[in-house]
Amino acid sequence: MLPRGRPRALGAAALLLLLLLVGFFRLGGDPESRGAAGGGGAGGLDPALTPHVPPDGRPRGTAGLDGDPPGDHNRSGCHPPRPRPPKCELLHVAIVCAGHNSSRDVITLVKSLLFYRRNPLHLHLVTDSVARNILETLFQTWMVPAVHISFYDAEELKPQVSWIPNKHYSGLYGLMKLALPGVLPPHLARVIVLDTDVTFASDIAELWALFAHFSDKQVIGLVENQSDWYLGNLWKNHRPWPALGRGFNTGVILLQLDRLRQAGWEKTWRQIATRELRTLLATSLADQDVFNAVIKEHPGLVWPLPCVWNVQLSDHSQAEHCYLEASDLKVIHWNSPKKLRVKNKHVAFFRSLHLTFLEYDGNLLRRELFGCSSPLPPRAEQLQLALAQLDEEDACFQFRQQQLTVHRVHLTFLPHELPAPQPHDVTLVAQLSMDRLQMLEALCRHWPGPMSLALYLTDAEAQQFLRFVAASAVLSARRDVAYHVVYRDGPLYPVNQLRNVALAQALTPYVFLSDIDFLPAYSLYDYLRTSIEQLELGSRRKAALVVPAFETLHYRFGFPSSKAELLALLDSGSLHTFRYHEWPRGHAPTDYARWREARAPYLVQWAADYEPYVVVPRDCPHYDPRFMGFGWNKVAHIVELDAQQYELLVLPEAFIVHLPHTPSLDISRFRSSPAYRDCLQALKDEFHQDLSRRYGAAALKYLTALQQPRGLA
Amino acid sequence: MLPRGRPRALGAAALLLLLLLVGFFRLGGDPESRGAAGGGGAGGLDPALTPHVPPDGRPRGTAGLDGDPPGDHNRSGCHPPRPRPPKCELLHVAIVCAGHNSSRDVITLVKSLLFYRRNPLHLHLVTDSVARNILETLFQTWMVPAVHISFYDAEELKPQVSWIPNKHYSGLYGLMKLALPGVLPPHLARVIVLDTDVTFASDIAELWALFAHFSDKQVIGLVENQSDWYLGNLWKNHRPWPALGRGFNTGVILLQLDRLRQAGWEKTWRQIATRELRTLLATSLADQDVFNAVIKEHPGLVWPLPCVWNVQLSDHSQAEHCYLEASDLKVIHWNSPKKLRVKNKHVAFFRSLHLTFLEYDGNLLRRELFGCSSPLPPRAEQLQLALAQLDEEDACFQFRQQQLTVHRVHLTFLPHELPAPQPHDVTLVAQLSMDRLQMLEALCRHWPGPMSLALYLTDAEAQQFLRFVAASAVLSARRDVAYHVVYRDGPLYPVNQLRNVALAQALTPYVFLSDIDFLPAYSLYDYLRTSIEQLELGSRRKAALVVPAFETLHYRFGFPSSKAELLALLDSGSLHTFRYHEWPRGHAPTDYARWREARAPYLVQWAADYEPYVVVPRDCPHYDPRFMGFGWNKVAHIVELDAQQYELLVLPEAFIVHLPHTPSLDISRFRSSPAYRDCLQALKDEFHQDLSRRYGAAALKYLTALQQPRGLA
Repeated sequence: MLPRGRPRALGAAALLLLLLLVGFFRLGGDPESRGAAGGGGAGGLDPALTPHVPPDGRPRGTAGLDGDPPGDHNRSGCHPPRPRPPKCELLHVAIVCAGHNSSRDVITLVKSLLFYRRNPLHLHLVTDSVARNILETLFQTWMVPAVHISFYDAEELKPQVSWIPNKHYSGLYGLMKLALPGVLPPHLARVIVLDTDVTFASDIAELWALFAHFSDKQVIGLVENQSDWYLGNLWKNHRPWPALGRGFNTGVILLQLDRLRQAGWEKTWRQIATRELRTLLATSLADQDVFNAVIKEHPGLVWPLPCVWNVQLSDHSQAEHCYLEASDLKVIHWNSPKKLRVKNKHVAFFRSLHLTFLEYDGNLLRRELFGCSSPLPPRAEQLQLALAQLDEEDACFQFRQQQLTVHRVHLTFLPHELPAPQPHDVTLVAQLSMDRLQMLEALCRHWPGPMSLALYLTDAEAQQFLRFVAASAVLSARRDVAYHVVYRDGPLYPVNQLRNVALAQALTPYVFLSDIDFLPAYSLYDYLRTSIEQLELGSRRKAALVVPAFETLHYRFGFPSSKAELLALLDSGSLHTFRYHEWPRGHAPTDYARWREARAPYLVQWAADYEPYVVVPRDCPHYDPRFMGFGWNKVAHIVELDAQQYELLVLPEAFIVHLPHTPSLDISRFRSSPAYRDCLQALKDEFHQDLSRRYGAAALKYLTALQQPRGLA
Repeated sequence: MLPRGRPRALGAAALLLLLLLVGFFRLGGDPESRGAAGGGGAGGLDPALTPHVPPDGRPRGTAGLDGDPPGDHNRSGCHPPRPRPPKCELLHVAIVCAGHNSSRDVITLVKSLLFYRRNPLHLHLVTDSVARNILETLFQTWMVPAVHISFYDAEELKPQVSWIPNKHYSGLYGLMKLALPGVLPPHLARVIVLDTDVTFASDIAELWALFAHFSDKQVIGLVENQSDWYLGNLWKNHRPWPALGRGFNTGVILLQLDRLRQAGWEKTWRQIATRELRTLLATSLADQDVFNAVIKEHPGLVWPLPCVWNVQLSDHSQAEHCYLEASDLKVIHWNSPKKLRVKNKHVAFFRSLHLTFLEYDGNLLRRELFGCSSPLPPRAEQLQLALAQLDEEDACFQFRQQQLTVHRVHLTFLPHELPAPQPHDVTLVAQLSMDRLQMLEALCRHWPGPMSLALYLTDAEAQQFLRFVAASAVLSARRDVAYHVVYRDGPLYPVNQLRNVALAQALTPYVFLSDIDFLPAYSLYDYLRTSIEQLELGSRRKAALVVPAFETLHYRFGFPSSKAELLALLDSGSLHTFRYHEWPRGHAPTDYARWREARAPYLVQWAADYEPYVVVPRDCPHYDPRFMGFGWNKVAHIVELDAQQYELLVLPEAFIVHLPHTPSLDISRFRSSPAYRDCLQALKDEFHQDLSRRYGAAALKYLTALQQPRGLA
């Protein structure tokens, strides 16, 4: 063991630097050797000369070693070149990601990666089915230029690691990094492997460039552990897995895949793990225990990375010995279970970096990586063309532009369990933005069944939403409410695009197409399921079940527990039929007078401007996305149902009540605008032309109805 | 003239690089020579050998020249050192800033500076009184570590430049950069001068490092113009000021102040400007014309900066010849009057960088520049100590923590004109967050007088707010409404802190302390001014004039045009006295029965929980900031008024009406929380203890009143 202490370490640092200068020229540098942007990391250690880390209590790659040795004035004016990957080289990154929460984490990591990157990236994502569903949709809708994505099924990897008992919270997924060399494509020679809880503070190309330092025998780049875990003296009988000194942390790994495969990596780690498990029984830190056991036995495999590439923020971490100043930090690893609440001298600094990307508008990362000829994603190219063809003078320019906007979609933003398959189950479908969050608790109390909700939020608002749910016992307790975040982009509220996202994600055979401002009768969920069964909806009968809508003007309101109570409130003037004062046509065909007396479902006929709330099979037509903001968004959908010959069947015991709310900014902005009305008319005309094309003469009735005089309209 | 064309330029580039290597060692390098983070900019040109820019139609500092010459494979493995300012060196930046809009711009610039910086900064701000008021408050409340601010009065500089007729929209302020060497402190040797419309995409230390390249004679670093303006062929009779070739752009300037002063800069530019003005009559591009005329005559003064340090995004700009890839960009200059809407091939990329900082949460830039021993601002240190002393187990921990939070404040976020001094004028004072924006138009229609409004917003919301105002003819037309943005930070709504900001900024002798959900009677503004005059409020009488409050539950509501109409609505049940159903104690002392009949103002007595809306002199007591979120925030203020012996005088013709709105998230979160109630009780107790300390036995009545049984409470 080397003695501890700073002066000695500094002396060693100077020596190492000298050796590095020699070593570099001996090994030959990277052909590209211009000073890397932000390139403080390279060249700190000559791994050929220091193949393993002395357990001297101080991590090696301190800032002093990483770039600018303090007090080093003995310069020749000649500086060792810093390797940098060739411009536009495709960099490969592998991440194991499972479940809803890790999928959110990985997006923050990816945002930080993209913010600083200047190279095309290929992300290799090993996912369970939940993460795959989320991330596939997210990246498809994100459409970031020069980012390639490949998915690998974690399920298929499980047999390779499931024989290892693991006490770490990451479970089986935590072990999967061991299997990567066999899983990634055989032609892939190098990859950077990242945990989902790291944040980049620099260009990943600088990290990639460190591959150039590997000797022929070195195949794994790792940062030394910054905790005392592997020293084995944390408590009585603490017996960690074998490791060199403090061991290495596997939150950031450089893998030389080709050489690993040649060297029989899989066989090696399996043998060593099997042997250690005989006495140690299980891993405590998942893959990391195995990596360390292998390295202990084959120290020549590892190239120790400068520690700034994995600054580990666990409690009692020695991380702060690693960097001398803020600018040294390259990658921050939130490897404490406390995450952002970890105790660390500079945690405020780290947290600010992390929050930067947590709240960063991901749309801004769609910027082209110009200078590298990276083609746009195919859909992005089509969209750019379509956008370029729009006429800025068109009254509907904003509408058409926004219709062409592809919103990033993060499905099931929070943990969600699939509903048990039930043949008549029904999901409540709705959409909302931030100003309607306070409806969620009441809605959960009124609707005990599954819900699929689209939330139109900025990245920062999505974080507020998380805090809102965490603070609510009612919301936190539900796992059958799926929240799909659609990221804001553009001036208009894309109401029908949101409805379509929520509708597409409903997983029961039936959907109740509602709006967020309505509270259902407490019995509605049960009543709808019974009605669907009794009416044989969907199988024998193509029908939409109409749920009559009412409204109250009072914020404090005793919700009626039965139809009888509702009618009493209606008679006393405390309740009204929905939009009775402003727009009775919207619900007139429901025939509230008949509903009062009805004991059985009754058929009603479509009429112009009818926009009831309905229950339909989930394969119903989608909403027409051309209608944005306010006006005609539901009307067009009901027209479509009628054109497809859905019967409209009013349910005698069903009801929902609209609660009052402040008018949204959109509605006040556009209700007064003549241009908005003109555009809405143009969109209606186009909608009717499309109807005629699809339904021929049968669609004439909608046009005729529209042209009738309108009374109150 | 050199011939145009790329091969020749590349050859020249290679030659220049070689000469630079020689030149660098001849001149002696910067003592620090490690590869700068992101340091692609340095070393491109040897200015000593190329004292002027050939007018060959191609800007010089192309990316190829700036760092990594394409095709340069002739390497020795020895790389020219890149100068970098010594770690922790204080860098000086000067900016001229006048008016409300430039003050907003400069903050975005500063955010981009701070995001990438790793050195302490000293900002030298030449401001008019408007910008000074805004920026002084902003930086004081921002409390960014390692940022020093000095202000210089633009008014005092005016005589130095006001003799120059200037056609450019920047007016006199545009010329002031010429006078900087005389204005900045005599000991200041170097400064970087920036226009307010630039955005940084890199560490300013890299730019500062370029000073090291200046020869003894070179005193000004500038980027060549990227438009054809100075070529003088844009239209018939277009006669620009004299310039070398395309001339230089003065959006980013490196000034070697000490040598400029020695060389008699002031005399030189004045002589040349005077001479040119004889024939040219006025400047077209402000200071830039004069700088170019001087340089034309003394080309040895200039060191041409690599063009990536001022990528000029005007229409028809040649900027895209300047950079080959996104990573080359260092500073973007939005020097087109079209700003973000300028046409440029890569404008989406530039816009994304700009929006990044426009919407960036400035609180995240409060991070310490650790590694440099830069002391915290004094107030920040006190706060950190106070925060550290808080007890996390205290029920009021969140309240106390938030009370210690200093919110960034951006006064008069939009253009604002001071009210003409009128002895009885009254400003409406209120506060709001995003969810109440839609009240503003109606409020403007009801209150034609001055308003001072505090808006509690995130940085991103502040941008939405700007768009909202721009889209509203009613709001855009008003210059007497002052909007003060208080940036969000923490979980509680700091209602009284916001009220205090708005109150402190009211500039009339009287204030009407209202809330954003109330609409005043159309006549209220006039009526209050008359009443103040008649009652001799403030001068002879220490009184608070009570404006009775009512409420409607209806969103669509015909606002009463007189007291008679109001009473009729009250009788018909369309209106109620405010919070009649939930909390009558809050307004009971106003005595609505008496008000019905009153023809003259009448005195009322304070009682527990009284919280009327009042008109008072602007030097009234502030609100108690310990009350956050909901509960007791106004009550405590009225207690304070009573304790200070303000009479409470109800005005017989005054009224305001509360409009309905969705309950805020805060109110629903906390109304149900027992911990919140406990804490509120603790805060009330502390408030009463403070009252006793300040008012002695006289304060006993408030405590006694509180302990009485409460009926509905």
